[in-house]
Formats: sequence, structure tokens, C-alpha cells
Amino acid sequence: MNPRVRQIAASLIRQVAAQKRPDSIDLGLGEPTLRPTREYFERALEHIARHGIRYTANAGDPDLRAAIASHYAYVAKDRPENVCVTVGSQEAMFVALKTLLDPARDELLVVEPAFPSYAKMAALEGVAVRTVAMPAEGGFAFDGERIAAAVGEATRAIVLSSPCNPTGRVLGREALDALVSALERRPGEPVWLIHDEIYREQTFVADAAYCAARYPYTIVTNSLSKSNALTGLRLGWIVAPADFIEHAIKVHAWATSCADTFGQRVALEIFRTPGALAEHAAWYRERRGDVVASLEESGLRYVRPDGSFYACVRLRDGVDSLTAARELIERHDVVAIPGVAFGPPMEGWLRLSFVAPSEQVRAGIQRIAEYCRCLPVAP
Amino acid sequence: MNPRVRQIAASLIRQVAAQKRPDSIDLGLGEPTLRPTREYFERALEHIARHGIRYTANAGDPDLRAAIASHYAYVAKDRPENVCVTVGSQEAMFVALKTLLDPARDELLVVEPAFPSYAKMAALEGVAVRTVAMPAEGGFAFDGERIAAAVGEATRAIVLSSPCNPTGRVLGREALDALVSALERRPGEPVWLIHDEIYREQTFVADAAYCAARYPYTIVTNSLSKSNALTGLRLGWIVAPADFIEHAIKVHAWATSCADTFGQRVALEIFRTPGALAEHAAWYRERRGDVVASLEESGLRYVRPDGSFYACVRLRDGVDSLTAARELIERHDVVAIPGVAFGPPMEGWLRLSFVAPSEQVRAGIQRIAEYCRCLPVAP
Repeated sequence: MNPRVRQIAASLIRQVAAQKRPDSIDLGLGEPTLRPTREYFERALEHIARHGIRYTANAGDPDLRAAIASHYAYVAKDRPENVCVTVGSQEAMFVALKTLLDPARDELLVVEPAFPSYAKMAALEGVAVRTVAMPAEGGFAFDGERIAAAVGEATRAIVLSSPCNPTGRVLGREALDALVSALERRPGEPVWLIHDEIYREQTFVADAAYCAARYPYTIVTNSLSKSNALTGLRLGWIVAPADFIEHAIKVHAWATSCADTFGQRVALEIFRTPGALAEHAAWYRERRGDVVASLEESGLRYVRPDGSFYACVRLRDGVDSLTAARELIERHDVVAIPGVAFGPPMEGWLRLSFVAPSEQVRAGIQRIAEYCRCLPVAP
Repeated sequence: MNPRVRQIAASLIRQVAAQKRPDSIDLGLGEPTLRPTREYFERALEHIARHGIRYTANAGDPDLRAAIASHYAYVAKDRPENVCVTVGSQEAMFVALKTLLDPARDELLVVEPAFPSYAKMAALEGVAVRTVAMPAEGGFAFDGERIAAAVGEATRAIVLSSPCNPTGRVLGREALDALVSALERRPGEPVWLIHDEIYREQTFVADAAYCAARYPYTIVTNSLSKSNALTGLRLGWIVAPADFIEHAIKVHAWATSCADTFGQRVALEIFRTPGALAEHAAWYRERRGDVVASLEESGLRYVRPDGSFYACVRLRDGVDSLTAARELIERHDVVAIPGVAFGPPMEGWLRLSFVAPSEQVRAGIQRIAEYCRCLPVAP
């Protein structure tokens, strides 16, 4: 067996979620509870009834590539050749890392707290990982100078998600400027930015920065999973410079051949329907208002979400987040994800999602507050 | 950039196919021309209208895993834990190779002629490849002793497709027995068999052997692409020992997370409908009769297909298959795949598919025969 596969640890997030009971309040969920719009599926079904469901080109249906490129219209990345359609943003990230990084010499810098799959994917490829922590004291806010200062000799790429899973923070223009300016001053080969934009349609602040709009060496990954409640459709994409995409297509071709033709048609219907990508945005904005109100009321220390559908709450000092998550399920029937799953800077915190009905989210937060009040004080 | 990605050569098959003109007779096609049955899609759509389209478990929907396992009922591989649902058989093979082989020490033995992606996937992972040729003189028939004799010190797995793309040959029971007996006599760690069964429903002979039914260390890859004209659905699976599947699920999880939930529902409808996997089998059997008749009539030397939807024809001695394929498009408007794309033993041959309408296949074969007759005799 490939030893790199043996070494992959089981997912802490899934382990905790597996302890859930049928009547638990689930604030661990990482996917929308909304239903997708049926109409796109019906139109896609009509299309395949007429045309069958044959392979598309490896890089995806040309019309879909064009629609994605022109929707985002990133400077110098707005042509079909700048897009590779993938099996969700998971494969988008997998292909991006595998294409870009040479396991023999390159290192990936992960901005933490971070979704654990970036580091695990790199480990699977034998690529070295370095991390840089956005400190809890600053509410995990993105700090461009701090990220740039962590770039090492071998660092070839920096990966971050904004809006961020798990912190809910959004990369602002000033932070991106500081980061890019520092990268541009650096001699030698460029350091790439990999921007995971999967929560883009759940952005609640005006000052959101997009790496691809500011920095040529940017690779964007995204999908329809969160924007349109289509996690199971497995339809994502990479937007990047055309010469990078050319190589990424080869990796994608050998890994999966092409994305699902039916799913690509659903995606094309969405990109061709004005406003469809943002059709659930108002719902999330409302939920975010509710969760902030519940958190204020609870007396818990928390990070106000700028985006995504997560809020992070602070446990009492010295409390271990994995123990707390387990006790919360056992004693209070609430599922929350232990911060440690997202790296050391989030130890002592929990990640709560606010996709469940508002009254459940409110009740779950009250139970967490109650749990924290009853914890013995640290010695 | 990852140098292993840079080194991947462009696909010869796609290069030749790209030269096709709108009115060309296409005998290069590697996918069904039949339409899929609409009913499965309608039922799947009803299901997701009720339940949404959320992630399934990484390994796939439990009902689908169970249905696949019990449909094939391979000894000691007939439980849901023996199945991982994948993004087509492309991802199934990618995950199988990546999970099984340690790039630092293992070698993959490819039985040639072979679909080029096995060797390319191994190269992408940095895994060494050795090949063993089934000789043209024997009509590319599988020779178990010959395969076993090619197993080296570092060989950890043997990959073959049966029914075979490109040769149309089927692994018989005697050949499999010879191979397995030799592997069982070998001391040390077991050598695995990876059996690509994608053309299983296009088997035209009675004596078809299934590695998984005979040998415990077997990994099967398959999909709905060829059986049900669903190439674009990207729905495949791995069947293997449960402890192997456990590790394969991790690789699959990091590469793509899970297969499309909608496609998994279509697959479940198919596996639950008696006879649905074989619904196109009679059509292929008829096409195979037609192509054999046309080949007999043509005077060309050819390999009678035991399975798949390909027939291989011999060019005149000394004729280079890539040149021939290009001249056939340019001068005779016929697309055929040069044998060299499948490894050295098929140089001097062409692969023809017989999924196009019979009269077109017949006309294409006549044009190839005409082309061969007019070639200058080798010096």
C-alpha cells in the first residue's frame, strides 16, 4: 500500500459528526439545508434527452467554460481557456495543488485556521506544508504582512479561503494589498495564491478582496455547492492563467476524465440565468443576522462572521475543544466542530454552522453557553 | 510546476480524433452512440426533488454500494464494504493505482496492447511501469504464463482490461488459471490484479473469466459508461477487499469527495431494475456480427472481437499506424485509431470501433481495405 495513504488520518470533523443522535441539534453541518431549484434540473434533463449524456471535452463544455470565465471576468483570466470544469471544488483544489507543486522541492503555505483538506491533499502528494496562523486575539482576521512574512525559500504557493471556513472572516482589500505587494517585491520565481472562493455568495461585508482581480499568479477554486445548495452535484471549476490551466487539464483528465455532463448542463442553466448564483444570498444574510443576535444574547465570546455560514465561539480558557465537542454531544445533544480540527490557532474554540433553522441554532447556542457556564474553572 | 505533469504527453487518440471532419466516417469513437434510458433520470429527478442533492458518504450511497456488491457477488467481495463509488472508471483506476502503489518501491505491470491511461496515471504518480506484450501473432490473446513470467521483483500489481480495449480479446478461464497459479506460487508479498471490466456487458464469448471470482488480491474497476450509454454521467466503482477499500476511500475523498449524488441515484435505479445493466447487450452483439461480416468481406486481416466494441485490423507490413491513420482521414475521410497508441505490439494495426451505424462501419472498412490495397509495397 502507498505509505502516504496509510498515513492520512481519519477526518476529525466526520468523527465528531458521526456521534450525532437523531434528535441532536446539528451545528456541525458543512452544507446548505436549502433545496436546490428544480427548474435547472428539468432543463438539463430535456437537454440530455435530446443529446444523450456523452463525455464533454476534458476541460468541460466550451459554453460553460465561457460562461464561468465571463461571469467572474477576472483580469487576464476571463476567457474559456482560463477555466477547467472539475468534480466540485474538492477536485479543483486537488488538481490545482497536484499541477502546481513539485513534491521534490516546493512547499505549500496554509493560512490557518484552515479547512484540513488542503494540508491533507498536500501530504498525499508528498508536498511539504508550512502554516501561518491568523491569531485568535485578532479574531482570526487576515493579516497580509503576517502571511507574507511566513513565506519561505521553498514556498511556491499560499492557500487561503475567503470567506473563510472555519473563521467566517473575509480577506479585505488592504490585507490583500499588503500581501501582494510583499510577494511582488520578492525576487525569484513567483509565489502563487490559491484562493478558495467556495463561500463567495455568502459574503456579508462590502470590503471583500479577490486575489485573482489583483494578482496575476492566482488560482481560484469554486463550485455550485454552497451558492446553490448543490453539494451533491459535484460541479466546480478552476480559474487561472491559461498556461496553468493547460497543465491542470491533463491532471484532471487522468484523475476523472471530465465532470458530469448532466451537472455541467445544470451549471450552464444557472450561469445563464441572471442572479441565479446569488439566489440564496438573502437567506444566508438573514440567518447571519439571527446567529449574531443569538450569540450576543448568549454572552459567549465569538467572531462576527463577515462571510461563509460559520461562526466561531470561544470556550473557557484551558478547555480542550475536542473534549468539549464530545461532551456537548453527550450531555447537551449539540453537534459543534472542535476548533483543533482547523489547526492549533483554533484550539479552545468551536465552529458552529448556521444553516439549521434559526430556532435550532439559537437553542444550540444557548446550550453551548450553558455548558461553558457549568465548566469547572481552569486551575 | 510539477515536472511529472509537464512530462505527460498529449493523447495520441485525441490528436487523431481532432482531425475528423464533419462528414468523416468515425471508427475512432470510444463511447456508445446509443441514447441512455430516460426513465432512470426521471426517477432520480423525483428523488432529488424530495431529498435535495446533498453529499453522500465519501464511499457512496450505502444502498448503491450494497446493490453493486450483491449484483457481482464476487467471493469475499460481496458486501457494501467491498465497494467504493467513484467518478467513472477513470477515477476508479486512478484511486486504485494511487492507493495500492508506493512510488518509492513498487512497479506496475501493464498488459499490452493497453489503453494508454494506465501507464500515464502511473507516471503521474511517479510509479515505475513495466509492460508485457500479448503478441500480434496470437491475435493478442491473453497468455497467463507470459504475463506471470514478466512479473519482476518490484511488481506489485498487474493491470489488464477484459474485454480488452483495444484488442477486443477476453481473458479466458484457462489463461486466468495459469496466471493466478503462477502468482500463488510466488513467495513474498502478493501481486495484485487490477481488472478493468468496463466492457463487461459487451462480452460475446462464453468463456469469460473474472479475476475477482478466482483471486483474492483483485481490484475491479467498472462503470455505467459503456453498458448504459452513460459516459457523461461519470459513475463508476471499485470492488476490492474491504481493507483495501478503506484506504481507497481516503484517496477518493481527497480527490473528489464523493461521486455525484444524482448520478448515484440513476445508478441505483439501474441496479434495481432487473436486466438494466444488459439492456444494450443485444444491440452490441448484432453490431459485432455485422462488423465481422464486413471484415470478412474486406479481405483485411483482423482480430475477431470476443468482447468490447472494437476490432483491430492489420495494415500492410512495414506501414506505420500513425501515418496510416492520418492518411485515412485526409484521403478517405475515415477516422481510425493508430495501434501504436496502445503500445509497441499494436504498431502496424488500427483500432476500429463499431458503435457507428452498421452501413457506416461497413463503408469505413471498405475504404480502409481500399487504402491498404493502394499502399506501395514495402521495400
